[in-house]
Formats: sequence, structure tokens, C-alpha cells
Amino acid sequence: MPSPALPLVDLRSDTVTRPTPAMLEAMFGAPVGDDVYEEDPTVARLEAATAARFGMEAGLFCPSGTMTNQIAIKAHTEPLSEVICEQTAHVYLWEVGGIAFHSGASVALLPGERGRLTAAQVEAAIRPTNVHYPITRLVCLENTHNRGGGSCYAWPELVAIAEVARRHQLPLHLDGARVFNATVATGQRTEDYGQLFDSISVCLSKGLGAPVGSVLLGSAAFIQKCKRLRKAFGGGWRQAGYLAAAGLYALENNVDRLADDHARAARLAGALAQQPYVAEVLAPETNLVIFRLHAALPTATFLAHLAAHGIKASEFGPQWVRFVTHLDVDDAGLARVEAALAMSESVN
Amino acid sequence: MPSPALPLVDLRSDTVTRPTPAMLEAMFGAPVGDDVYEEDPTVARLEAATAARFGMEAGLFCPSGTMTNQIAIKAHTEPLSEVICEQTAHVYLWEVGGIAFHSGASVALLPGERGRLTAAQVEAAIRPTNVHYPITRLVCLENTHNRGGGSCYAWPELVAIAEVARRHQLPLHLDGARVFNATVATGQRTEDYGQLFDSISVCLSKGLGAPVGSVLLGSAAFIQKCKRLRKAFGGGWRQAGYLAAAGLYALENNVDRLADDHARAARLAGALAQQPYVAEVLAPETNLVIFRLHAALPTATFLAHLAAHGIKASEFGPQWVRFVTHLDVDDAGLARVEAALAMSESVN
Amino acid sequence: MPSPALPLVDLRSDTVTRPTPAMLEAMFGAPVGDDVYEEDPTVARLEAATAARFGMEAGLFCPSGTMTNQIAIKAHTEPLSEVICEQTAHVYLWEVGGIAFHSGASVALLPGERGRLTAAQVEAAIRPTNVHYPITRLVCLENTHNRGGGSCYAWPELVAIAEVARRHQLPLHLDGARVFNATVATGQRTEDYGQLFDSISVCLSKGLGAPVGSVLLGSAAFIQKCKRLRKAFGGGWRQAGYLAAAGLYALENNVDRLADDHARAARLAGALAQQPYVAEVLAPETNLVIFRLHAALPTATFLAHLAAHGIKASEFGPQWVRFVTHLDVDDAGLARVEAALAMSESVN
Amino acid sequence: MPSPALPLVDLRSDTVTRPTPAMLEAMFGAPVGDDVYEEDPTVARLEAATAARFGMEAGLFCPSGTMTNQIAIKAHTEPLSEVICEQTAHVYLWEVGGIAFHSGASVALLPGERGRLTAAQVEAAIRPTNVHYPITRLVCLENTHNRGGGSCYAWPELVAIAEVARRHQLPLHLDGARVFNATVATGQRTEDYGQLFDSISVCLSKGLGAPVGSVLLGSAAFIQKCKRLRKAFGGGWRQAGYLAAAGLYALENNVDRLADDHARAARLAGALAQQPYVAEVLAPETNLVIFRLHAALPTATFLAHLAAHGIKASEFGPQWVRFVTHLDVDDAGLARVEAALAMSESVN
Ligand SMILES: [Ca+2]
Ligand SMILES: [Ca+2]
Ligand SMILES: [Ca+2]
Ligand SMILES: [Ca+2]
Ligand SMILES: [Ca+2]
Ligand SMILES: [Ca+2]
Repeated sequence: MPSPALPLVDLRSDTVTRPTPAMLEAMFGAPVGDDVYEEDPTVARLEAATAARFGMEAGLFCPSGTMTNQIAIKAHTEPLSEVICEQTAHVYLWEVGGIAFHSGASVALLPGERGRLTAAQVEAAIRPTNVHYPITRLVCLENTHNRGGGSCYAWPELVAIAEVARRHQLPLHLDGARVFNATVATGQRTEDYGQLFDSISVCLSKGLGAPVGSVLLGSAAFIQKCKRLRKAFGGGWRQAGYLAAAGLYALENNVDRLADDHARAARLAGALAQQPYVAEVLAPETNLVIFRLHAALPTATFLAHLAAHGIKASEFGPQWVRFVTHLDVDDAGLARVEAALAMSESVN
Repeated sequence: MPSPALPLVDLRSDTVTRPTPAMLEAMFGAPVGDDVYEEDPTVARLEAATAARFGMEAGLFCPSGTMTNQIAIKAHTEPLSEVICEQTAHVYLWEVGGIAFHSGASVALLPGERGRLTAAQVEAAIRPTNVHYPITRLVCLENTHNRGGGSCYAWPELVAIAEVARRHQLPLHLDGARVFNATVATGQRTEDYGQLFDSISVCLSKGLGAPVGSVLLGSAAFIQKCKRLRKAFGGGWRQAGYLAAAGLYALENNVDRLADDHARAARLAGALAQQPYVAEVLAPETNLVIFRLHAALPTATFLAHLAAHGIKASEFGPQWVRFVTHLDVDDAGLARVEAALAMSESVN
Repeated sequence: MPSPALPLVDLRSDTVTRPTPAMLEAMFGAPVGDDVYEEDPTVARLEAATAARFGMEAGLFCPSGTMTNQIAIKAHTEPLSEVICEQTAHVYLWEVGGIAFHSGASVALLPGERGRLTAAQVEAAIRPTNVHYPITRLVCLENTHNRGGGSCYAWPELVAIAEVARRHQLPLHLDGARVFNATVATGQRTEDYGQLFDSISVCLSKGLGAPVGSVLLGSAAFIQKCKRLRKAFGGGWRQAGYLAAAGLYALENNVDRLADDHARAARLAGALAQQPYVAEVLAPETNLVIFRLHAALPTATFLAHLAAHGIKASEFGPQWVRFVTHLDVDDAGLARVEAALAMSESVN
Repeated sequence: MPSPALPLVDLRSDTVTRPTPAMLEAMFGAPVGDDVYEEDPTVARLEAATAARFGMEAGLFCPSGTMTNQIAIKAHTEPLSEVICEQTAHVYLWEVGGIAFHSGASVALLPGERGRLTAAQVEAAIRPTNVHYPITRLVCLENTHNRGGGSCYAWPELVAIAEVARRHQLPLHLDGARVFNATVATGQRTEDYGQLFDSISVCLSKGLGAPVGSVLLGSAAFIQKCKRLRKAFGGGWRQAGYLAAAGLYALENNVDRLADDHARAARLAGALAQQPYVAEVLAPETNLVIFRLHAALPTATFLAHLAAHGIKASEFGPQWVRFVTHLDVDDAGLARVEAALAMSESVN
């Protein structure tokens, strides 16, 4: 068993990333002001830079991706609306039922292929006009898709869904918690996203390594409306420029390196596929590896084995486990995970 | 083609039933008072009689089944709760997204077999404790199940689901829009329902033939809480005793005769099964017959053919049609439907 | 003390009115249909007749004035709106906090003179544009004003308020629970109201004597939107034509006679003014008489004295009592009230 | 006119305070972790330290005082509740109508004396049990009171209000955006507050000088419930320890010095009282000075005069202006304000 002095290899989530010294330096040298008065120059810079990168007009810096998603959903809908999303979408599954709570909106939950919807599915889910029905008002996509194991949409399918949305005058929102993983993996330009989506939530505190925050993107009028919603949600913060500086640093320095995380995820998937106690591995497309343990190996036993080797991972449903690679998992850490996985006698 | 003087055979829904002269006479002579002051004696009689019949403590007379269902859901939950129901349940599908709107509650939508859930499904859908999740607070069943084609639960499954609910301290609500169809079809006593369910919505204006209203049943404390909710929803009506009298008449006179509607539904299903243009008929269990037309016959063409013969029916999804038998459809009407169905040359 | 065989004189509210034999006859001869399918001819007739009378395009028949008011408020606003109303308005004070519950809207509560606002007050209450504020979206008036003791607006003030509302693009809603009392008392034509207001809630079950229901009036598009809201609120009722027939009868027969109720209210006010135990009487303008008892006479004692004489009235705040005259209070009843009031030795 | 090189004297709000170098150093060196996993040690330290200081069990660090207040209100109420607060309370006036939006709760708005309620007022506002009424569920106080000009409650009145609340089983929440100003001004111990209040929102980013955040205090069970609400509101942030470190530094270093701000506010009030163009100054009790300009001097003219001298202040209603003293306003700044105020010839 490795010495307890070894640093933790934390594969639970890419949210656990912590600022590097260079990012910290950027943070604490940042000029700040009162962002409720719209006077924080670093927040303004971050919002503009993120918007520009996605070809959108404006941005709004918020404390979390749940806030950016839920504000966007609220802004696009009204009570008695219905939101179309995949049945395991983060906005439905892991945001505390916020669609109902904040927006009073119903959900049309569609079964995706690893979280991916098709344009035909979306179109079929639009409610006809009938006094018994809510009114379909929004389509939400997630790319990469968390529950789908970091799966990426093919660009033509996104274009087709956007076409359906536009034809039915439905806005299209992207939960882009890991959108940079998608663009890096597929080579699609971020600037193209602004053409398809009416709003995008971009997370800075996952693979990008910033400590806190997401940026909501949209048209200038949309973001103006969302600024009031952010205030209502309690997201009107003051000298947030320190956090924004981290986000700016991340955008400038930590995007391309996501390819390394993806390569490490592939390595992990390969190692997992060789273990006798692993029943199934979803082929990783980005930085998430989701796999199923044989019924003979209780998830708790497996996680305890990893923990004994200084490795943390997340249970992801009965017999399912999720590994996430990120900025704070290097090759040395990866080797330790591979070693721990191979000790199957001690696993079983 | 039949003479236009023939009365309409309206198979769209059992809601279209109209009072008989005897029911009208009961209405006309009913003593009334201001029900907001709790002084309408006929309303009080109806509430008590319905509660007694289902072995429950108290009742609340409301203008619709949507109101009784949505009030019950609101009373059992709080915002950020989650409600477990079948994915085509009336409370989710046809009540304007009211679960989100009135209760701010999320939905866990389960795929049933003709609308019927199993105890295992219900138990698996209960959310574990986690700050990302809403809290599961209610299980809703529907019996008979509208979208399932008037399907009835087997009593042991209801008992098993109730056992799961009780074990997890979840209240269990029954959307009993057509609960009398279920009790008549299965021979189960209505009094038994009060043992399993914490609240039941009973509709009077469908197969029972009353013009308006549903009664919500539950414990005395629950109904007291719901009385305030009814006021908030705008269901605090004044001299409602005229409508309550119709409900009382219906309870006393129109329950057993639902067996006739079921027999007629079976007859219709038999007739449909013989038609070349019918692809599939869900075996009717009560008074609903749902069937699918072959792709070659557009639903609109089929409905127009029926309309030309003085018969109305409901489209129920692409190529699907629903027939509903009820108090106002007699054997003469049925014969006319059978004749119209048989004219396949004019249908195709 | 009068014999207990004497009929009750019920001054608690005009909601207690019960149909006359002629109204009952109209009800039970009415043709009905399923109003959710928009096929009840009597409901349609009532909606059209009420709209026409107020110079508006369309109407919607609902089970209560709380429902018509709250649906209108919901239709005119969105969450995070603010509604301007008088601080004792029925919509705020007696509708279970429905403005917050149904509409998620804040209230700007203005102190009126007997419930009457001025145009200047309304204009001053409109929130400036600021991310900290809700957005003012609606002005609600009540005429006659219940808490103000049946007070009527002077027409020029209504015109001035409407002008302010229009200038700020704010819709103007009238809670017309007793609007006919206002038009009869002031001689203003009901048709003029449609010029000022965007929506009006008209009650049929108070002084007009119908058993159940209110009609919401507005433009055709507004009423279409409200029809969905009515369904969501659980107000989608079926063969409601029996109740609509009572409303039609009331509109045709019971409006002008409200002048008699007003005259009787004035008589009661005169009698009250002569009693040594009465400290203050608000001069009645219509059918409500609100008065204050001297501190020496507990309200409960006074109401018990009345009850012993077969008379019911409502407590209306500490030491305040409300008398309401209506269709079911005739001169004989009035004389009994006057006699009971005069027995001051037994009162004190 | 002073050289434009002079630093701004920003009297608009104490929210504009920026970290000092020492605070920044504390931030920069703080250990952090993922607070959604409850693994940020600095956040945990801040929550515990703030709770201990107020004699409460637990704390929750949130991005804003609007979030802490609105989460507390939500946690204490349910839809169709009513919240008692002063008619100019921050929770009602400046939180975007959040009480209605988040909690579906109505408000009972009481007129305070400079924002201070009395126990008798609170007791009289509790709604009696009646199906027409929302249920009173919460009393909210604000100390110091912003709109009241930084007014402080006398401790005995707080004790009396708490006694009323307890007698009626109503929780008592304190909006303590400037509670340290109150304790410093009155000498009351912060530890005493935990005895009276069920929850307290404490702001760190105003006079205390931290960049971002408020801490919500309450019992351990209450804070556990609020943690889910914070997640729902989008306040579940990740490595928030940098901001928490600033809050800890502020608690340890910047509380006692609030007395200086109060002394400077008194000096400003004295200077204002001598100006011919000032009609009225509310005697400052802490760090806010609210004053009224004579009608002859438009507020905009006065603010422009100040701006020309490098001084910013806030309009606070027609002819009213607010000055706020804080960490970033020193004696030199104060002297500049006094000089600018004295130049009455250029003001008028
Ligand atoms: Ca991070
Ligand atoms: Ca609601
Ligand atoms: Ca019917
Ligand atoms: Ca009546
Ligand atoms: Ca600050
Ligand atoms: Ca809400």
C-alpha cells in the first residue's frame, strides 16, 4: 500500500481543480470594483472575452453553472411552459428540480443515446396547441453530456436541432459545463456555437481550473434581462474580479491542455477494459470514463480499495463508477490509478 | 348515410354526459347555502357520502378533477419536492404542467405497462439524499389509467406500491377520475381504497353523469388544509349544492351501471378487431377503447367518416383513436357505430 | 324576543343570496354541453352577454371571483413583477396571498381613502428601472371597494388613473365583485368601463343572486390566454350551463333592483347613527354599512344580541361590524334589524 | 476644484469597499477545496467563526446578502405564507420582489419609525385563522435599518418582538447586512443575538471590507436545509475559500473600527446641518446619513456638484440623498466632502 504521504488522486470530478500559482497571481493582482454597480473591470473583461470566444454579444459572470442554467431557463420561459431536455440532463437531474422551482415549467424528458438527442426527437416532443398542455418554450442541450459519459454531439446533429428549434420559434440553450471539452475533442470552433444557440452556460471551475464561476452568454438584451434574474437569485456579488481573473487566466491558458485530460481518460478506459471485475466501459470521448463493475464486486468495496491507495472516484448509479481526468491529475497520478486497478486480487 | 336528425353518438369522452331528467329533478330540489361559510347542506352531504364510500374521513367538492389532483399534490409536497408518476399520467400530461406551476415540484416519470407502475419501479425512483436532488415527497397513481386505455391495477400491485410508499414515508395519491370503473370491473370494494391511499380524487362528471365536479378525499386534517388551497385556487364556490345534488344522485344510481359501459366497450373492441384498417386494439378493461389505424388510413379521414355518420371520437396520438362508452351511449348508438365501422369501403 | 320560527336576516354578505324560483326555472331549463370542449351554449351566451354589457370583446365564466381576479393578475404579469393596489384590496387581503402564490409577483400597497386610490398615488408607486426592483406590470382597482365600505370611485378619477396606466403601458384590472352596485349608484354606464379597463372581473353570486360564478372580461386574445390559465387553476368545468343560466337571469333581472339594497343600507346607517353604542358609521354609498361600536360594547356581545333576534352580521376588525343588504333582505327583515338595534338596554 | 488626480470619495455605499493589502494577503494564502463536497477548510472556518460570534450553531457562506435573506425566508415559510416586515425593509424593497418569487409568500408591510417596528405592531399584524388569509409564518427585522438611515433597535424592543414571535410560534429572522454597525453603536454583544433570532444574515462585504459574501446563521438543522436551498439558488460554489479568508480577516480586524465610520457619519451630519440648502438630516446612529435637500436644489444638481469634486453619493428618493461612511473613506476624504458641502454658492 502506498505511503499516506502521497498526494490524493481525485477522480471524483473536475470541479475539484485548484488554482495553480500562476492563476493565483493573476487573481490577486486583478483590479476590482463593485459589480452590482457594474464597476468591476475584471468581471467586465471576463464577460466580454467569453462572449467573443463563442461569437455572442454579451456575458454574465455567476457563482455556479446551476445559476447560469437556471437563470437562462427562467429567462426563456414563463410559468406553464415546458422545457425539452434529455432525461438525464444535468438541468433536470442534478439542479434540485430547479426548472419547476424557479420557472414553474414542466419538462419533456427524452431518452437520448448517451445523452444525445436527435432533431426528430426534439420535434416530436413539441406540444401541440391545446388548453390541457403547457406550451413548449425551450430546448436545452448539454455538450459534453455528463451522464452520457462525456459524450459529444456531432456538429450536424446540433445544426439540425437548431433548425427545428428555429422553425418552431423555440430558443435553444446549451448547458456548456464542459463545452470546451467538446470543442477540443471535435475540433469545432467555439465561435460557431454562437450561431446555433440563443444562450450558453460556460463553466470555468471544472477542467479549466478556476476556483469559482460560470459565464452565461447570449444577446445583449437577453443578458440584460438575466442581470435582474441574477440579482433575484442572489448572484449579485460585489468585488468578484478576483474570481473573474482566474477565469480569464483559465480561458487563455487552460483550454488546449484539455486534450491531455482526454488522452488520460482514454488510457484509463484501456486499463479498465482489461480488468476482470469490469463489466463494461463507455468509450470515453472526452475526460469522463463511466464503467460498470461486475455484480460480484460491490461498488463500495471497489471505492474503498481505491481510497486505500489514495484515489477517490464517484459512484454513478448501481455498480457504475465515474472517473474524471483534469488539471490536477498528472501522469504520475494516472500510473498510481493503473497500478491500483491492476491489483485485482485485492479488489475482489 | 344516416339522416342528420339522428342524435349524435359522442364517443370522445365520458365527460360529455348530461344529467338525466331524474338527476335534474334531484338538483332542482336540493337545499343550498353558502359553501364558503360551510353552510351548503347538500355539498356537506356529498362530501360525507363520498368519503364514507371510500373509507376515508373527509371530502372536498371542487369544480374539476384537475383542481382536486393539483390541490392534493400541492398539499402533499413543498417546492423542490419530486413527485413520482407514470410518464403518461393525467396529472403530468394533461393538467397544463400544474405540478411545476402550482407546487414547484419536479417529476420522476416512469414508463408503465399501459400506465401501470410496479412497486419495484416506484422504489427505484425514490431520490437518495443529496444536495443536488429534489426530495421525493409523493407517489401518484391513476386507476383506471386514461392513456393506458382504461387499464386497471391488480389489487396486489396497489398493495405492494402502498407498502413501498409507507416504508419510505411517502404519501400515496390516487387520481380516481375513473376509479368507479376500476372497482366495478375488478369487483374490489371502494372501502378498501381508503386503506391504501392518503388521498383520492373522485370524478363525478364522467361516467357517473353529473354535470360538474370532483371530490377530493383524505383525512380530516388533510382536507382542512386543502380547503385553504381550494380557496387559493379559486374553487371556493357559493351555492354549489345544485351540482352536489347531481353528484349524490350519481353515486346512488349510476355506479353499478358502469358495467354496461364496459360491456359496450368490449363489443366495440370486437368490432374494431374485425376491420381491415385497424392495426391494433388495446384489449379494453373498462370503458375506453384505444386502437391504432393502419398507416394507410389517415386519422382525419377515419374521424371524418365517423362524423358523417353522426359519431364523434378522439384522436389519441398519431394513427391512434380513442372510443369512450358512457351513460349517453346506448345499444342503438352502439349499433350505429358498428355499422359505420363496417363500411370499410367508404372508410378507405 | 322574536319567535325562532322567523326566517334569518343574514347581513353577513351578499354572497349568501339564493336563487329565486324564477331563476331556478331558468337554470334547469338551460341547454348545456361540455364547456371544456367549448360546447356549452348557455355558458357561451353568458360570456358574450356580460362582455357586451361592459363593452369588451370576450368573457370567461369561472367558479369564483378569486379565480377571475387571480387569473387576470397572472395573465397580466410574470414572476418578479409588481402589482399596484390599495392596501386593503380584496385581491391582496382576502385571496390567500394569491398574488405571490400564483403570479410570483410583489405588491405595492397604497393607502386609499376608503379604498380609493388617486392617479397621483398610482403614478408615484411605479418602480423606476433598477436591477434591485421588481418591474411594475399591473394596476388593480376595486369598485365598489369592500373594505372601504362599498365606496365608489368618481368616474373622473378612474379616467385619470387609466390615463396614468396607459402612459406607462400598464394594464388596468378591475375587481368588479360589486361593479353593478357602483354603476347603479353612480349612474355610470357599464359600457364605459370597457374603455378604461383591460380586464374586469364581474361577480354574479353576490347582489345579483346567482348561486355560483364570476365572469372575467377582456380582449379576445386575453381571454384566450386566460382559458388556459383557468384550466391550470382547475376551473375547467363541464356542463356549467346550469350556473351560467342563473347568471344570465341575474343580468337581465337583478341589476336595477340593487338600488333597493342601497336604499336599505342608507336606512340601516340612519338607524345605527342614532344608537348610543355606535361610535361611527361610514356613510354608505351602496349596499355595505360599516360601523364602529363604542369600546364599552364588545363586538361579540353585539353580534350575540343580533343572533338572538335571528340576525347575522360580520365582525370587520376590532369593534367594527359590517352589514350587507341584498336580494334576500326585504323591508320586513329590515324592520326586524331596526327593532333589534333599538333595544339598546339589552345590547349594553 | 480639486485636481482629477485625487482619489474618489465614494459615499454611495459601504459595499464599494475593497480589500486592503493585508486582507489580500490572507486571501492569497488560504487553503481551499470544493465547497460543494464540503471540503473547503477556509469556508468551514468562516462559517464556524461567524456562528460562534453570534451564539448560533451553524453558518452558510453565500455570494450575497440577498441570497442569505431569501434562502432564510424560503426555509422558514411555505407558499401561501405571509411574512411580516417593515414597509421599507431591504428584503421587500430591494430584493427584486424575491419574497413572492422564491417563496410564494405574501407580505404584511408595517410602517416603522425609521424602519423600527414595535412588538405591538408585529402582534397586530399576525393574521387570524381564516380560509381567506395566508398564514403568518415569519417576522423579519433589519438592524441597522438601511432605509431608516442606519437606525438601531433598542435591545428591549428586540426582546419584546422576539417574545411575541415565540408566543405565536413564529420564527424571527434578522437581516443583519449591517448588524455589526448596530452592535458597535449600542455596545450590545453579538452573542446575545443568537438568543433572540432563529436566523441571521451577516454581510461581510459592506463596512467589514470583504470583497464578496454573506453568512447565514441558524441552528444546525436549519442550515442543513438551507444548504439544499443554496444549491437550488445557484449558490453552490467551489473553491470559495479565497473569499472566505477575506471574511475571516474582516471579522478579526475590521469590526471595532466601525466606530470610526460612525464618528465620521456624525461629522458629516453636523456639516450638512449647517448648509442652507439642506432641509433636514436624519440624526445618524451609525454609518449612514440621510438628508433632504430644499426643493430649490435639484438632487441631480447637488450630485453633479459633488461629482465635480470627486465625490459620489446616492439619490435616496425625491430630494433625499444618502452618504455612507466606510473603510475606504478616511479623514482626508471627509475633509474634502466637508469642503465641497460648504461651497454653497456653487451648489445653488
Ligand atoms: Ca475548480
Ligand atoms: Ca406558483
Ligand atoms: Ca358530465
Ligand atoms: Ca349567491
Ligand atoms: Ca466590499
Ligand atoms: Ca418560484
